Amino acid sequence: MAVFSSLTPVFVAVLCVIIGFLFKNSQRKESRSKQKPSDQTARPWVDEDLQDDTEISTKDNEENNEDWMDTTDEENLPHVPYSPVQYSVSEMLDRSERFYTLMNLRRSVRFISPEPVPKEVIDNVIRTAGTAPSGAHTEPWTFVVVSDTDVKHRIREIIEEEEEINYKQRMGNKWVQDLKRLRTNWVKEYLDVAPYLILVFKQAYGILPSGKKKTHYYNEISVSISCGILLAALQNAGLVTVTTTPLNCGPQLRSLLQRPANEKLLMLLPVGFPASDAKVPDLKRKDLNDIMVLV
Amino acid sequence: MAVFSSLTPVFVAVLCVIIGFLFKNSQRKESRSKQKPSDQTARPWVDEDLQDDTEISTKDNEENNEDWMDTTDEENLPHVPYSPVQYSVSEMLDRSERFYTLMNLRRSVRFISPEPVPKEVIDNVIRTAGTAPSGAHTEPWTFVVVSDTDVKHRIREIIEEEEEINYKQRMGNKWVQDLKRLRTNWVKEYLDVAPYLILVFKQAYGILPSGKKKTHYYNEISVSISCGILLAALQNAGLVTVTTTPLNCGPQLRSLLQRPANEKLLMLLPVGFPASDAKVPDLKRKDLNDIMVLV
Repeated sequence: MAVFSSLTPVFVAVLCVIIGFLFKNSQRKESRSKQKPSDQTARPWVDEDLQDDTEISTKDNEENNEDWMDTTDEENLPHVPYSPVQYSVSEMLDRSERFYTLMNLRRSVRFISPEPVPKEVIDNVIRTAGTAPSGAHTEPWTFVVVSDTDVKHRIREIIEEEEEINYKQRMGNKWVQDLKRLRTNWVKEYLDVAPYLILVFKQAYGILPSGKKKTHYYNEISVSISCGILLAALQNAGLVTVTTTPLNCGPQLRSLLQRPANEKLLMLLPVGFPASDAKVPDLKRKDLNDIMVLV
Repeated sequence: MAVFSSLTPVFVAVLCVIIGFLFKNSQRKESRSKQKPSDQTARPWVDEDLQDDTEISTKDNEENNEDWMDTTDEENLPHVPYSPVQYSVSEMLDRSERFYTLMNLRRSVRFISPEPVPKEVIDNVIRTAGTAPSGAHTEPWTFVVVSDTDVKHRIREIIEEEEEINYKQRMGNKWVQDLKRLRTNWVKEYLDVAPYLILVFKQAYGILPSGKKKTHYYNEISVSISCGILLAALQNAGLVTVTTTPLNCGPQLRSLLQRPANEKLLMLLPVGFPASDAKVPDLKRKDLNDIMVLV
């Protein structure tokens, strides 16, 4: 009994240390598990940061052409002289002024007339988009031009179904409020009405004759540049559009249009003449001094 | 003593359970810490997939404007009628044909003349780029136009230093071979010679008057579209450039040009007249049938 009572404090001390250790440990675990979900919520921001990282340092082993070499698979590509027309200073000033005026009249238009548009004009507009530069001259774009009434309507159904879900469930309150102000909702009549829908796909990779995948460097930037030239060509021809990026509809639209797996939908542009009662929000553009810095 | 010896097995059993528990716990911790680094190595692939995923499904809570609503912070933005010039069918055909011909003559040119270019033309070209559409009308672009000889030279030093490392250490063998064929290397004389270097920065986020960050939706796509319009404007004015995306130089160039942290370098365009002996690789563009699909 004496030994027991003399040993008890030792056991109690040991037990206290052990219980203390366990308690500390479980706390650490708890704080770690508390951290975990916030890590996961934060992940989109991490991805976004990487996506916004021009250095692409994490992809150094994958995407390495820092210069958009017009590299092809041909051996010893011949070089040819290049001497385009050179304008006089006054011509340059005049041309650049007029082109600015023309482009500055461009607006995103959601009210499109059903009036038909000559197919040859669309051909020329797509041809023009195809003159864009691209990483390693991969030309990683496919322009699907839809004029078929039934297919246009099916596209509208797919998009409106997803947009309704976006508006009701996925979108933050702020965005829904912003959109309400503009009196728009998920009904996209122009998808039925516009004579043409241009669905712009980026080819994330190509398929070599051997069947192997070939990475298309900077495919999204290249296709976006091409879309910039496409918008300029539409405006030059007197046509209107609105730049849309249908969320969550890519796979369904890709499958509807039977595009291969390497093609991802980047943009959808309804194209036509503006409706006679077309309206646009009264937006201003930034001044030159707000977008240009001279060094 | 009898009590002690009769209690000892109980203490031993308790101790065994506790030690067993601790051991199991430390193993779990170990396996978790083993998992961590492989998660991190895998992350770039996940990001890359996300970057190529038009659905942006993992970012549903962050980027939700599937339509590029020209949303601003103004309440109840007024709408105004929009009725641009409409051309006759023959005019449209003629205009679209001529614009295609003009754009199709554009080539990426690395041999740029030191001949000065009127500053007003550059102003108009940047103004034109600023007419591009952008996600939620954020206009997330800054065009830094460098004509200062010393700054141009410093930019060249930064880029050539990084490019030499890229070529020698980072680039795959295949790419180095491809570039050899094109007889180019990491020496970029045009960075000194071109009268203007246009460094295009995307604003990954904006700063609200409250100091809070405001996400710029689709900033990279918007700025790339703007660059497409910029390329069209340069070509229209009779100027040449080459679309480059200097790898790993972003932070150094941003710091040299004293741009804020929310701006990331997307592209660098040396701008001028072509050198009298300018040559370009004899590349062909895809046929219309290879880039357009009719439905």
